[in-house]
Amino acid sequence: METAYFNGKLLPKDEIKLSPDDRGFLFADGIYEVVRWYKGFFYDMNGHIARLKRSLRELRINWPDADKFPSLANDLIKLNKLENEPAMIYLQVTRGAARRSHSFPSPEVLPTTYSYAWGFKPDSQSKESGIKVMLKEDIRWTRCDIKSVALLPNTLSFQEAFENGMKECIFVRNGLITEGSHSNIFFVIDGTLFTHPESNHILSGITRKNILRIADASGIKIREEAVPENRIRLVKEAFITNTSAEVTPVTEIGGNTVGEGVPGSVTSLIRDKFDDEIKAFKV
Amino acid sequence: METAYFNGKLLPKDEIKLSPDDRGFLFADGIYEVVRWYKGFFYDMNGHIARLKRSLRELRINWPDADKFPSLANDLIKLNKLENEPAMIYLQVTRGAARRSHSFPSPEVLPTTYSYAWGFKPDSQSKESGIKVMLKEDIRWTRCDIKSVALLPNTLSFQEAFENGMKECIFVRNGLITEGSHSNIFFVIDGTLFTHPESNHILSGITRKNILRIADASGIKIREEAVPENRIRLVKEAFITNTSAEVTPVTEIGGNTVGEGVPGSVTSLIRDKFDDEIKAFKV
Repeated sequence: METAYFNGKLLPKDEIKLSPDDRGFLFADGIYEVVRWYKGFFYDMNGHIARLKRSLRELRINWPDADKFPSLANDLIKLNKLENEPAMIYLQVTRGAARRSHSFPSPEVLPTTYSYAWGFKPDSQSKESGIKVMLKEDIRWTRCDIKSVALLPNTLSFQEAFENGMKECIFVRNGLITEGSHSNIFFVIDGTLFTHPESNHILSGITRKNILRIADASGIKIREEAVPENRIRLVKEAFITNTSAEVTPVTEIGGNTVGEGVPGSVTSLIRDKFDDEIKAFKV
Repeated sequence: METAYFNGKLLPKDEIKLSPDDRGFLFADGIYEVVRWYKGFFYDMNGHIARLKRSLRELRINWPDADKFPSLANDLIKLNKLENEPAMIYLQVTRGAARRSHSFPSPEVLPTTYSYAWGFKPDSQSKESGIKVMLKEDIRWTRCDIKSVALLPNTLSFQEAFENGMKECIFVRNGLITEGSHSNIFFVIDGTLFTHPESNHILSGITRKNILRIADASGIKIREEAVPENRIRLVKEAFITNTSAEVTPVTEIGGNTVGEGVPGSVTSLIRDKFDDEIKAFKV
């Protein structure tokens, strides 16, 4: 039986029941994080905590226990006997349950907090051989920097990619490639690593930041600059990053083969260095 | 005790409990409608049903009972003894509860359906004297034509207006006025009635459509054309429309007084004709 966390308590996941007045359900008025457990440690928990706090601040949701998340996450790993497996922790915080109104509840109500853990099977095939991705107009709002649960555009776009045999949907806004439906994307052009700069049009991925650090330490030239869709043919290598995909090569974008159609040397170098860090941290 | 509807059953509202795996909660993967009860009839129920079906189609959610909504709404009015009061019915349909994944659940799961009724106090003061509204950059996605529960941008924007003493937040996209956070907006310039045309940037309001019909029947010249923000000083009258506000005059927009700062003659004419229709329908 799974043990999960709900509003301050650890309890069987099946027993968690939400009010239909929860603002997460009625208004997508909440935020989330997904953190990876590597058989002994959480990947960049500090990075996740910092982003969590920023999301809460942007929505003006008061959750005083954000700093206790690492300890809660540890409890969930242990109680669900996931210590020796690759696993994930999901955390969602909403503005709480109140009579439906576009304005915030007044007086303020307690936020709803929900967290659970699950054993995770990495997609090592994709990480080794690469994936095909779709290109599609970015239909999302203009505050993609907030990790909110208003994910309808992401799920609709990803589903379209999925039904077309692609592993991710990459967005294009005003002719510029932004990011994926749940990943960031990097390109190699003339030996330089490109990725969209931090802005209101992308989520600042935890893996993205670490990859930039790793690439820099490896002497790779970096430009945090958006790649226009119409320069896609100049791209020699590409890869996506996120908590589950880590560094996953992209071998086809919107029907265009990337480079030789196999993971490139810069991508492989970065992926291997990422893996080395994980091995070094391993307890 | 309130009686509400949940997944095919009528039951006390307090007993309704959602799974935290509901895709409405995790992904804002659902749609809604709000219908008004005028002591004897629902306002344009056919219009609401048609829009509900369109929203479901756009999200590819299968809810075979959409046609039974009028009968369900009637039950909720009666069971909650609201027959002789102004009231509202809320309906939400999500893709259902399933293990979290950006792709749709496979195999498909039953949608979650939730509906409830409440007695409603019209804001007759605003409808009589008019309201002040804020102008703000439209931060929403580009499928505003779908009445989805991904309302985070709407609630954040409305809250900002509310805290500044305004009764609505009106959005501007690419320099053009689109609509409010939960209303459509109309303008009178040189005796002509302007409102943003149906497009992916606005929700096709049920009241909006009926107001266009009423204005046309009254011989008012109509242009379904967006008004640029920089032409706001030419606006002689303005009003918002939605299910609760009906026709509510706007006397100040983004700090600019509209016309003489009181409801104008075209606005008053349309508002009165709307009220006449309601009285004529009254049973």
